[in-house]
Amino acid sequence: MRFNTDLKVGVLGGGQLGRMLLQSAININIDLKMMDADPNAPCSNLTSDFTVGDLEDYDAVYNFGKDCDILTIEIEKVNIGAMKKLQSEGVKVYPQPEIVEMIQDKRVQKQFYVDNDIPTAPFTLTENLQDLEKLADKLPAVHKIGKGGYDGRGVKVIKSKEEIKSGFDAPALLEEFVPFKKELAVIVSRNEAGEVNTFPVVEMVFHPEHNLVEYLLSPAIIEKEEEAKAKQVATDIIQKLEMVGILAVEMFLTKDNDILVNEIAPRPHNSGHQSIEGNFVSQYDQHLRAILNLPLGDTSTKISSAMVNVLGEDGFTGNALYEGMDAVMKIPGASVHLYGKKLTKPFRKMGHVTITDPSLTSLKRKIDIVKSTLKVKA
Amino acid sequence: MRFNTDLKVGVLGGGQLGRMLLQSAININIDLKMMDADPNAPCSNLTSDFTVGDLEDYDAVYNFGKDCDILTIEIEKVNIGAMKKLQSEGVKVYPQPEIVEMIQDKRVQKQFYVDNDIPTAPFTLTENLQDLEKLADKLPAVHKIGKGGYDGRGVKVIKSKEEIKSGFDAPALLEEFVPFKKELAVIVSRNEAGEVNTFPVVEMVFHPEHNLVEYLLSPAIIEKEEEAKAKQVATDIIQKLEMVGILAVEMFLTKDNDILVNEIAPRPHNSGHQSIEGNFVSQYDQHLRAILNLPLGDTSTKISSAMVNVLGEDGFTGNALYEGMDAVMKIPGASVHLYGKKLTKPFRKMGHVTITDPSLTSLKRKIDIVKSTLKVKA
Repeated sequence: MRFNTDLKVGVLGGGQLGRMLLQSAININIDLKMMDADPNAPCSNLTSDFTVGDLEDYDAVYNFGKDCDILTIEIEKVNIGAMKKLQSEGVKVYPQPEIVEMIQDKRVQKQFYVDNDIPTAPFTLTENLQDLEKLADKLPAVHKIGKGGYDGRGVKVIKSKEEIKSGFDAPALLEEFVPFKKELAVIVSRNEAGEVNTFPVVEMVFHPEHNLVEYLLSPAIIEKEEEAKAKQVATDIIQKLEMVGILAVEMFLTKDNDILVNEIAPRPHNSGHQSIEGNFVSQYDQHLRAILNLPLGDTSTKISSAMVNVLGEDGFTGNALYEGMDAVMKIPGASVHLYGKKLTKPFRKMGHVTITDPSLTSLKRKIDIVKSTLKVKA
Repeated sequence: MRFNTDLKVGVLGGGQLGRMLLQSAININIDLKMMDADPNAPCSNLTSDFTVGDLEDYDAVYNFGKDCDILTIEIEKVNIGAMKKLQSEGVKVYPQPEIVEMIQDKRVQKQFYVDNDIPTAPFTLTENLQDLEKLADKLPAVHKIGKGGYDGRGVKVIKSKEEIKSGFDAPALLEEFVPFKKELAVIVSRNEAGEVNTFPVVEMVFHPEHNLVEYLLSPAIIEKEEEAKAKQVATDIIQKLEMVGILAVEMFLTKDNDILVNEIAPRPHNSGHQSIEGNFVSQYDQHLRAILNLPLGDTSTKISSAMVNVLGEDGFTGNALYEGMDAVMKIPGASVHLYGKKLTKPFRKMGHVTITDPSLTSLKRKIDIVKSTLKVKA
């Protein structure tokens, strides 16, 4: 096969995921053109073909995509109609628009799991707060907005009747509170030819308040059977969807050792950053391989790793200043990734640090150093 | 310490080394501005601040560098006068111009080794072919041009009297032919604060005809004592130079287990590419850390690796076409790096493939697959 480096590949979104995708694309001579509404998006100065445009606008997406051979995404909030139109005109749109559309609405996503025997927590649909009030007997539970939720926004834990007013007065779903042991994630890939493989299962530790991953361990410390079950569920989903690209599957490992799918994202994901340093192929390499119909890479663990999100410090908004870089750079095996965002605000994802270390004890100690020293202020 | 991501860092040269440096710089939010004479250089479409300019021209270099906080190089053929002027005006020029100047002339470089007790092969200076003729009794030997040699050009093995006419009729040196067991390289780094460390010693296997690295093993398969000696020599050189940045030291391991320095390069180097995948910190990360006066990173081996240069196939000149990418991408642990050069020509460096694998037998088998399948044609 002759590898065509002249393919026009467009990416909807120009954030940190696009930035790391771009770093991978450089390795195989593929120029990515990118679009983002923010002229200062993390990718804006890294490609000679950057378009400022609204990702949810039909015309903007259509016009951006029409000269592409392949169109992909790094964020799900994109105009589906334009993607479908482009697909009908022969542009390869991966992930396929119908899949992104399904995922955009958590209510439809949940129904997909039910229809396809994918294990997930029981739920009830709510159209407004009045509906929620009728479900007081199901509390405590988690209220999730159907459309528009992202990065912890659009998810509320409703502990009691008194908290119902903080729920969503819009189409949403109330999900049973799952008593889980761990939160896991599996990134699964599928190329055009139908080849499928999974990355090792990873384990996420969430910030108690802000519903963002605080740190992650790869591979997860779980039993072989749990691992196999988690990978099988991820494989089932991507195969049922016949999706091309990579799909991040977030899951709960329940107290009864069941796997329940929480949500999925059809793109590179926060739970796969550490693959750059820790695995033989990264999630970004793999996404490109999948959409370019190249053979999928070896996802095995090269070395155990941890990933710590670097969030904007609470109380600081403005031009980002990084404190403690020296201390972090002194940690053997620490790799800093800053996302090129000029402005910081409380809990904004400004970067991440991957730590590679064969010893779990040492990994955890190093995570603590990163968390206590690296601060993004203004 | 507050890390200043607004530093203006300029790079003289925009080739593949600059390209990989740029990929590293993205991780720490440092925008590199770059200059190269070729408007289609590998970095040309990857930075929003790319200048087309002659690196050997005083004005071009001076004008490019005058608004930089830090100026560095990815190639040695640069105008030294302009770099010295910029240094005198407060720009941090790393590596320092005096060092680059010394290295530009292999005759001066050799004298530096002699003056500083750095072991190197015995040599005699020649000004022209007449001088060379007088040295017939020293043949077979290696004739090296003083200035302008690069990538195998400027080096000729003169086996007998009859071959003298193929030597250089310009200032050069005739070096005794060293009966060596292995060719080794060590990349050594030094930051502004004077911190020094070395990467593991690597072992290069050269193409018998074209005098280019054919493949490389990291770490080298040598005795502990030989390793220590090689690292010590590299450390001695960078400390004597008080250089800031990274320095690649190419060496011979002689049949008598001596280390003799062949030549040095004050920049990221072909012998360090595999550090991207195989070491905890890459040579590119390390170069940035050194010139930005950040702590140096952990150079240890993460996993054994091999690096194979991908050269333009003999007999093909024109728009590059890559054959066999599929086969290479199927190799577990193979990472392809193409350099973004539109045009191929015989033996031009078009990319490299790094293979990571803990087993040496398996590494060597994979090297053979890469060499036999990946072809750059036109």
